[in-house]
Amino acid sequence: MKTNTSTLAQDIIEGIRAAIGPAPAVLHEPSFNGNEWLYLKECLDSTYVSSVGKYVDRFEIDLANFTGAKFAISVINGTAALHIALKLAGVQANDEVLIPALTFVATANAVTYCDAIPHFIDSEESTLGIDGKKLRDYLNSISEQRSGQCFNKNTGRVIRALVPMHTFGHPSDLEGLMSIAQDFNIVMVEDAAESLGSYYKGKHTGTFGLLGALSFNGNKTITTGGGGAILTNDENLARRAKHLTTTAKLPHPWEFRHDEVGYNYRMPNINAALGCAQLEQLPKKLAAKRELFSRYKQSFSKISKVALFEEPTNSKSNYWLQTILLDENQSDQRDLILEETNAANYMTRPSWVLLNELTPFKDCPNMDLPTAQSLATRLINIPSSPELVLSGSQ
Amino acid sequence: MKTNTSTLAQDIIEGIRAAIGPAPAVLHEPSFNGNEWLYLKECLDSTYVSSVGKYVDRFEIDLANFTGAKFAISVINGTAALHIALKLAGVQANDEVLIPALTFVATANAVTYCDAIPHFIDSEESTLGIDGKKLRDYLNSISEQRSGQCFNKNTGRVIRALVPMHTFGHPSDLEGLMSIAQDFNIVMVEDAAESLGSYYKGKHTGTFGLLGALSFNGNKTITTGGGGAILTNDENLARRAKHLTTTAKLPHPWEFRHDEVGYNYRMPNINAALGCAQLEQLPKKLAAKRELFSRYKQSFSKISKVALFEEPTNSKSNYWLQTILLDENQSDQRDLILEETNAANYMTRPSWVLLNELTPFKDCPNMDLPTAQSLATRLINIPSSPELVLSGSQ
Repeated sequence: MKTNTSTLAQDIIEGIRAAIGPAPAVLHEPSFNGNEWLYLKECLDSTYVSSVGKYVDRFEIDLANFTGAKFAISVINGTAALHIALKLAGVQANDEVLIPALTFVATANAVTYCDAIPHFIDSEESTLGIDGKKLRDYLNSISEQRSGQCFNKNTGRVIRALVPMHTFGHPSDLEGLMSIAQDFNIVMVEDAAESLGSYYKGKHTGTFGLLGALSFNGNKTITTGGGGAILTNDENLARRAKHLTTTAKLPHPWEFRHDEVGYNYRMPNINAALGCAQLEQLPKKLAAKRELFSRYKQSFSKISKVALFEEPTNSKSNYWLQTILLDENQSDQRDLILEETNAANYMTRPSWVLLNELTPFKDCPNMDLPTAQSLATRLINIPSSPELVLSGSQ
Repeated sequence: MKTNTSTLAQDIIEGIRAAIGPAPAVLHEPSFNGNEWLYLKECLDSTYVSSVGKYVDRFEIDLANFTGAKFAISVINGTAALHIALKLAGVQANDEVLIPALTFVATANAVTYCDAIPHFIDSEESTLGIDGKKLRDYLNSISEQRSGQCFNKNTGRVIRALVPMHTFGHPSDLEGLMSIAQDFNIVMVEDAAESLGSYYKGKHTGTFGLLGALSFNGNKTITTGGGGAILTNDENLARRAKHLTTTAKLPHPWEFRHDEVGYNYRMPNINAALGCAQLEQLPKKLAAKRELFSRYKQSFSKISKVALFEEPTNSKSNYWLQTILLDENQSDQRDLILEETNAANYMTRPSWVLLNELTPFKDCPNMDLPTAQSLATRLINIPSSPELVLSGSQ
């Protein structure tokens, strides 16, 4: 149908090829080069594949050790992790929760599972995450403090929580956001679904908020098939998280008594076994992803009208998804670039549609979103698998 | 502490031993004697462990073929399956949903996830499921029809759905319950979490209601680690179930647009791979479970004051958990029997605490529950693994 071709698209294809070699390349694929096989076999041989088993316990300990969180509670996926983290942070029906407009839909869905209302915040170009300066000004304008709670003067609802999401692995402005949470009496919960292996001032993302949520979906830096985890430094919250995610059953040798509405969110042992093996390989994968960034940096430095996104100041990113940003006056080229790169078998994808533009959230409150709107038209993710480096391509 | 010993407990231990041989025996353990190994390895080798992959598609087709449902949609567990089935059946906030008081807590939890209210119904001793005759009399007394909907006259709320649960695999009185659903304009959704391989008048449980929910938790007849499935014969509902359980994303080569609040409930490919291998062995497991019932029947026929539960008339049960019922005047022996059997390393467990007695549901409506209350004091599950027969014990 389209007969247009884009010089910029061809430049980008050449930039990708120079970094990773010939097509095809998907956006992000998992790799299993360690003990996955051994641990899965142990699971089957022991018959402990389900909710009880040593790999669940080990994965939680390994995650706590890796991230520096005092406690990690493994669950069925990142959405479930964020749902329970929000509940434990005190998010109740009819509360508002501040989240970026530029994020995967799960961030908003988890808020709605608490019968709460997402309130969409603008992003900053330097981190791709929530813009702390704009958020502070906005809260000064629309909120008021009553009885130690932050109220939205326009809606009359409590603004209960702030959920930074570390976009494509790049840490948000955590110090700025923590100070806002403190100043406005809002709880901070981190959506760290994309940022396992990312650090802000040397401390792992997901450990700055009262709770944090990780994801190990198949497209993530490490995978458990499907899985996630809740991070926290608070022993009581950790105990509550385990209780709520395992049907809220009270311990007893045989009695089935549950003391609140719980969830069946536990991670099966077979998925945790995969996670243990994957986590052993995480440092190697992270190193490969940084090397991939360096290769892209070299090849894209020669291309005009587009810039490779680089980790923010004070941060060390996992570079989960490598990202290019078109110059502002090139955004009309985006769809053509997506078409031509995908046609060339280099898988690329654009930003998520901003969540405030989706039907289920169109009546939710939002601040002005000029930067998120601009980023959404200019941002393209390019092939990012660590195997592109580890397998010796190029 | 206790110095009592129970003659009945010793008789029961002897009855178990006569059927399955020397201790130990757990209540129900999975076994992996087929292609589990092969299929998991294929998953790892293909790197498709997550939400996309051939085993998810195959497992859904295999499940539809096995159950005779036109469509099967695999999900993350039985609770998620029931949650989505209820949503698709039209259960809305503040609706009432009729469920047995004698069931696992997930049945009630799934109702609350829809912001609806469980309404607890009595059981019958012949099926261990909802008593259709009592339910009809009760609805005649407490409900009225208005604009084609069934209203609870006491609470003013709509009674939207009826959820039979096929206890320990034994089919409920499905014809009786279907006629009630029809007569009172209530949707029937089956909680078939425990009854994969169970048939009522030759038709598989979970295929009588508008939708049905299966579970493949580690303690079930077959397992995927954690997993479940939605069954339906309605193509539109099947399509909606897949959409809602996969974040409600609209199909597009790269755009992320979601048209409603969805869920991250998809079953990972690695879990589906396990399910495919397990399903191949289901007929053998079912045969073994019936053989185990025969052995118990023989040994318990010699013991007085206790009866082995047998599949209801018109039904062929999977005998998921073998069940003994103490005579009414022996219920004071129950705890002692649980203690002594477990001490003898034959794992046993009692009924779930009736859900209307749990803190989170104590304010929910319920009918008089004399049979459920009686069953809850007299019912004991005994070791039920198919391997007790297949491995040649005894």
